[in-house]
Amino acid sequence: MTILDIIEKKKNKQELTKEEIMFFINGFTNGTVPDYQMSALLMAILLNGMTDRETFEMTDAMLHSGDVVDMSALGGIVVDKHSTGGIGDSTTLALAPILACCGVYVAKMSGRGLGFTGGTIDKLESIPGFDTALSEDEFFQVVKRVGCAVIGQTANLAPADKKIYALRDVTGTVNSIPLICASIMSKKLASGSDTILLDVKYGSGAFMPDPESALELATKMVAIGTLAGKRIGALITDMQQPLSDHVGNSLEIIGIVDVLKGKKNRLYYEIREVALRLLTLTGKYNLVTANEAFQEAIDSGSALNKFAEMVQAQHGDPSYILNPDKFAIGTRDVVTAKTDGYVTAMVAADIGRAVTHLGGGRMTKSDTIDFSVGVIMHVAIGSSVKRGDVLCEVFHNGGRGLSEAKALIENAITIGCDKPAEHKIAYAYVSKDGVELY
Amino acid sequence: MTILDIIEKKKNKQELTKEEIMFFINGFTNGTVPDYQMSALLMAILLNGMTDRETFEMTDAMLHSGDVVDMSALGGIVVDKHSTGGIGDSTTLALAPILACCGVYVAKMSGRGLGFTGGTIDKLESIPGFDTALSEDEFFQVVKRVGCAVIGQTANLAPADKKIYALRDVTGTVNSIPLICASIMSKKLASGSDTILLDVKYGSGAFMPDPESALELATKMVAIGTLAGKRIGALITDMQQPLSDHVGNSLEIIGIVDVLKGKKNRLYYEIREVALRLLTLTGKYNLVTANEAFQEAIDSGSALNKFAEMVQAQHGDPSYILNPDKFAIGTRDVVTAKTDGYVTAMVAADIGRAVTHLGGGRMTKSDTIDFSVGVIMHVAIGSSVKRGDVLCEVFHNGGRGLSEAKALIENAITIGCDKPAEHKIAYAYVSKDGVELY
Repeated sequence: MTILDIIEKKKNKQELTKEEIMFFINGFTNGTVPDYQMSALLMAILLNGMTDRETFEMTDAMLHSGDVVDMSALGGIVVDKHSTGGIGDSTTLALAPILACCGVYVAKMSGRGLGFTGGTIDKLESIPGFDTALSEDEFFQVVKRVGCAVIGQTANLAPADKKIYALRDVTGTVNSIPLICASIMSKKLASGSDTILLDVKYGSGAFMPDPESALELATKMVAIGTLAGKRIGALITDMQQPLSDHVGNSLEIIGIVDVLKGKKNRLYYEIREVALRLLTLTGKYNLVTANEAFQEAIDSGSALNKFAEMVQAQHGDPSYILNPDKFAIGTRDVVTAKTDGYVTAMVAADIGRAVTHLGGGRMTKSDTIDFSVGVIMHVAIGSSVKRGDVLCEVFHNGGRGLSEAKALIENAITIGCDKPAEHKIAYAYVSKDGVELY
Repeated sequence: MTILDIIEKKKNKQELTKEEIMFFINGFTNGTVPDYQMSALLMAILLNGMTDRETFEMTDAMLHSGDVVDMSALGGIVVDKHSTGGIGDSTTLALAPILACCGVYVAKMSGRGLGFTGGTIDKLESIPGFDTALSEDEFFQVVKRVGCAVIGQTANLAPADKKIYALRDVTGTVNSIPLICASIMSKKLASGSDTILLDVKYGSGAFMPDPESALELATKMVAIGTLAGKRIGALITDMQQPLSDHVGNSLEIIGIVDVLKGKKNRLYYEIREVALRLLTLTGKYNLVTANEAFQEAIDSGSALNKFAEMVQAQHGDPSYILNPDKFAIGTRDVVTAKTDGYVTAMVAADIGRAVTHLGGGRMTKSDTIDFSVGVIMHVAIGSSVKRGDVLCEVFHNGGRGLSEAKALIENAITIGCDKPAEHKIAYAYVSKDGVELY
């Protein structure tokens, strides 16, 4: 078997065997298959596709290229949620304590932000003292004792993916459903949870442009996860505008505390949808009992207290959760409406970019983050506005990036004459039983 | 403009502009576009194709990556013939003197053999003293004085093609019609002739497997040549068996002398077809007058004398042409028929490989060639044979490679019960006026 035979087969739209897929994943990871052959193969995969079986074999080969976390010692159901990323997506921060209150373990390894999307780890680090680099032992102890913990990725999960992604990024081979699927699922399956809810976003702030392509990706990922023996489902959700009104690091913690106190905004409804789907996936709940448990966790205040407990267990100062006014926030400015009308569209990615300009995100991996900056949106798609109304508050630090951020936000919000159709939170839910449209 | 934008466009089946094509050809040639990006782009081109305009721009960018030969100083029509390669293809050796006798210049730069195909330059070097490395000045002087000359490629023609071909060879991106077309045509257009006849071969000894794919390639090359302002046509010819009965270096010279003396075999008819098409392409002849001129050149003995004259002008010993018995030929052995029947098929490439085993070809570029070895076929497809009949004479040197060669030849010749359909020399002729089927 040679890499040329494998390229030839995929080029001619033939299905690759398990052995052929292992050959090129292992060969590329250990350096015997050079970049220029791998990139030709990746382009052939992008253009000619892969069956579910091939995608599963590729995912499997990639996940076994590194550590596979074993959470069986926890002795209970371990759930995980993965979002394909977006603007103001702080759902994990609320889900972890809510789900812990509902009796399932959340042992989450999260990422940092890069470019226009924020990262959960960065947001948590805006809480003074919070340690996102617990040892594996301490991490498991916190999960066992508190029910949830969130750390940065420590284990060497799917190193093959890291190397392949770096090549895809510079060879125009990112937007392939099988390749995206293998990339996400290899890390997800290596991280040890038994029940997984994927949140696949579409729209101007997401990777997939439209609900149809998001549904295609979700369907493939659910098929792969099911083949791997996981309880798995996927929600297709809207990312045509920021998910949280609060975008920025400390600001998103404040927004999450609002939700845990029962504030019913878009973020709240999305978190409820994800939580209910995850709880029913475990088999311990149906949609009715899951909803009851969710409401109880919020209404009783136990989810908020659980968040504070997790923060304390990870060496953070819980008083910031119980009293979020303690967060130092930048100087306030505003973007106002130039005309009367309705908000008809938003370029969510540009609102993310605006926050990065203010210093709240990273352009390169080595940039440091200013936790105090960000925006609070006062409008959503469908809002009626009058000329001069505040569209958005902008919090800056000494004017850094302010003019660029305001210009980006102004252009990102379209005001038109006709009230747009309602934007649903979710478009569809996919499980091994099929697709359910909202 | 970035290489990623260009990959993205081709991946999405969009047409590339002249500027984009120049960007990636020049960038790859000068090293600013790395291998791994070029190979992804080449795979996208292979799978998504290129229009004639794109292929022309790519050819043009590649041809301008090196020297462009100017033959205008010769002050006459300069013709060239390019074969896509095959077994026993010594047509150039006869065409050069025949065409010179017909009043057009042949200033040919030819290649050496590698793998199972022989090279014109190697065949000529089997004539004692023959110099295939004339200076450019002397080359032009010989062409001007004699009417024809054949040398190895000296000018730095289309270096971009050399670099791109090396990458295609190891990334599964060889069999793309636009890429093959740009590779051949960039060198052809750089070598300075105004009238070009392409001989595109199909079958077991050729690059294209069937007449349809050969026709597709030929049509594209004629379109590109026409766009470049050349008088150009293409013959689609059969390479399902060796073109000459003689395969090997000195043996092919002997076979050519036979043709120039008027022996009417497959090689003769193919040479006549190519010559007539080339002469009519110049506009100086029609098919009737071209045929008259061709016959006159052969029948009068002037083509044979012209070949001897060219050999002498290139410092070779012309007595070998006038008396080919002087060539030292290896020890004779034979391959005989194991059964009665008809020759129904041949694997021409394996007959080429047999000659390489005997020492008559190169496995690697640095191998030296034994001019004295080779085979003389006694049968062609359609021949009736009895058990024990000689299928082929094998000339070896001290038994070197003999058993491998004989085994290859035995397996390469299929004998069956039913007489096969007649194999025509040519399948079609393509010019700017369209396709003419034979």
